Amino acid sequence: MSAVLPRSDDRSNERAEEKLAIVTGGRFAGVGAKVAHGVIRYGDRDVAAVVDEAFAGKTASEVVPFCARPVPIVATVSEAAAMGATRLLVGVAPAGGRLDIRLRGVVLEAVRHGLHVEAGLHSLLTDDAELAAAACRQGVELHDLRAVPKDLDVPRGGRWRASDVDVVHTVGTDCNLGKLTVSLELHRAAQARGHASVFVPTGQTGVAVAGWGIAVDHVVADYIAGAGERLVAEGATRGDLLWLEGQGSLFHPAYSGVTLGLLHGVVPDVMVLVHRAALTSTRNYPDVPLPSLAEVVTSYERAAAFIKPARVAAVAVDTSAMGETAARDALEEIARASGRPADDVVRFGADRILDAVMSEL
Amino acid sequence: MSAVLPRSDDRSNERAEEKLAIVTGGRFAGVGAKVAHGVIRYGDRDVAAVVDEAFAGKTASEVVPFCARPVPIVATVSEAAAMGATRLLVGVAPAGGRLDIRLRGVVLEAVRHGLHVEAGLHSLLTDDAELAAAACRQGVELHDLRAVPKDLDVPRGGRWRASDVDVVHTVGTDCNLGKLTVSLELHRAAQARGHASVFVPTGQTGVAVAGWGIAVDHVVADYIAGAGERLVAEGATRGDLLWLEGQGSLFHPAYSGVTLGLLHGVVPDVMVLVHRAALTSTRNYPDVPLPSLAEVVTSYERAAAFIKPARVAAVAVDTSAMGETAARDALEEIARASGRPADDVVRFGADRILDAVMSEL
Repeated sequence: MSAVLPRSDDRSNERAEEKLAIVTGGRFAGVGAKVAHGVIRYGDRDVAAVVDEAFAGKTASEVVPFCARPVPIVATVSEAAAMGATRLLVGVAPAGGRLDIRLRGVVLEAVRHGLHVEAGLHSLLTDDAELAAAACRQGVELHDLRAVPKDLDVPRGGRWRASDVDVVHTVGTDCNLGKLTVSLELHRAAQARGHASVFVPTGQTGVAVAGWGIAVDHVVADYIAGAGERLVAEGATRGDLLWLEGQGSLFHPAYSGVTLGLLHGVVPDVMVLVHRAALTSTRNYPDVPLPSLAEVVTSYERAAAFIKPARVAAVAVDTSAMGETAARDALEEIARASGRPADDVVRFGADRILDAVMSEL
Repeated sequence: MSAVLPRSDDRSNERAEEKLAIVTGGRFAGVGAKVAHGVIRYGDRDVAAVVDEAFAGKTASEVVPFCARPVPIVATVSEAAAMGATRLLVGVAPAGGRLDIRLRGVVLEAVRHGLHVEAGLHSLLTDDAELAAAACRQGVELHDLRAVPKDLDVPRGGRWRASDVDVVHTVGTDCNLGKLTVSLELHRAAQARGHASVFVPTGQTGVAVAGWGIAVDHVVADYIAGAGERLVAEGATRGDLLWLEGQGSLFHPAYSGVTLGLLHGVVPDVMVLVHRAALTSTRNYPDVPLPSLAEVVTSYERAAAFIKPARVAAVAVDTSAMGETAARDALEEIARASGRPADDVVRFGADRILDAVMSEL
């Protein structure tokens, strides 16, 4: 049994044939199921079924319109297996990052049905002796999304010299305000235009959505940039326009180190600033005010330029808390303050920001 | 047997009575013994003896004048124990970070003599089953300097609001150019002036010198700043003028994340820029040029100001590769280029830079 899905191209055929069952333990309708919702809305991964007895008989998009795919919801793993599922994904983030008894029972049942299992828990599946033994007997894989490669190192360098790929990096004014969503919406819009576009995941939810990647906030501090470089290298085997999900914020008292290390590891060609309308301070540290948007843009451009210059092409804004008129006013004001085009890619579409990005490449 | 020396004040009496034996396995005269040299030159720790049969009968400062203390060198652990040693420190960084057979034999002998053992190896002492069993039988502690606390977290915050201590942070134009040495020289000069000064170690050599601290480059990326905040809190229990050793450089393609995370975790009141004369690029990435010294100073001040403003008070320069006239010319040019007083604290003394720091507090 291997703890980590090998990150190389030679398994893409196998991955292409894989069908997911996503288990949400009665919580499919809630925000806690954001891994499930993200995978269904954005995933290139084939989803055979959601396993959630509370909503069995409906479809995913009937219960959560954001999902946008009529994936059937069934009550049991054996039904999902009968529908072709080959891998179970734990689609909720349980409190404390641990499997509760009910979800753990579903995971064990999946293993006994010969399904691989994938989860982004704090407590690793592979550390659960009973699960590990069962997986070993069945010859299935337990894949912990938070586990990081054991052979990480510092960057070899070279991204700043020449490159066959274009790297677009989403950076933010805070953590947890939509860098993943913006990266995925821009990636989908680029695919629709025919680009060989790749979403490159750098956090556990992104890894669940895409089925590969590294949760860079969990690597040893010395290897943040090395992990970023490795993700670009792997992205380059999958396409030539890479959307590198950012993490944290340069202005975040806890996570700025991850942000700068990742920025210097991925060495972007263009950045997209992700912002929430009306945000004026870091959410978890409200007494640390944000600089002006003009300063935010300049700070990211200066920081990138320590290694290689890159411009912030546009500002992607979450206006979901506002009515439409207020949202359009806010976007206009943000464009003025930042000196960059601003739009809400979920609400109004990704084309304007994608145009701004492409004009820099 | 405990793997990590508890980092709290209640053991300071015990620590004060402790006497070190430092083993260097025939290599006391070489640069590989820099942990031994640093601990002898700078340590507040009582050193009973060096254990190195190749130099037995001499003193440390006879063999390496930089050590500046006539610590006796003996051939065996039992001699060191007879001289009162209670703890063995591995004073060299062996190739590959592993104990060779000879050093491992000395460590085992020390355990059998009832000495605690301390080392900054990649391979943890506590992972060596025979050593661990012997330490358990003897009731002695194996202390791995690279091991990090298991209960790290993000910063609680508050350092930017008010503080009873002054925090001076050494930042650099590269890694490995003397931030540790500059921190220690300034700390000693401040002590000589009667300040309640504390050197706060953030890397494994610093931890070996001071006997406490956290190697922040080995913590999980999300907790870099949290580790910095914790080190300030512990430093504040030991004094009120803290010299926080910096790591890496904002301009370093591999380590900039650690640098910014640590800067935002310790929230300095003043910074001292550490530089090597004639350095124009990151040593390990020679095709990434350094910005001008004026830009370096501005970049650190801007980055600090994301959380709380702090000035770079002075530039501490390593001029050891130059003759004295060239060194004085270089310092003058660096002062002009950076707009800050510049001096070589090892060569010409720490007073001028200490004055510049104190004038900012």
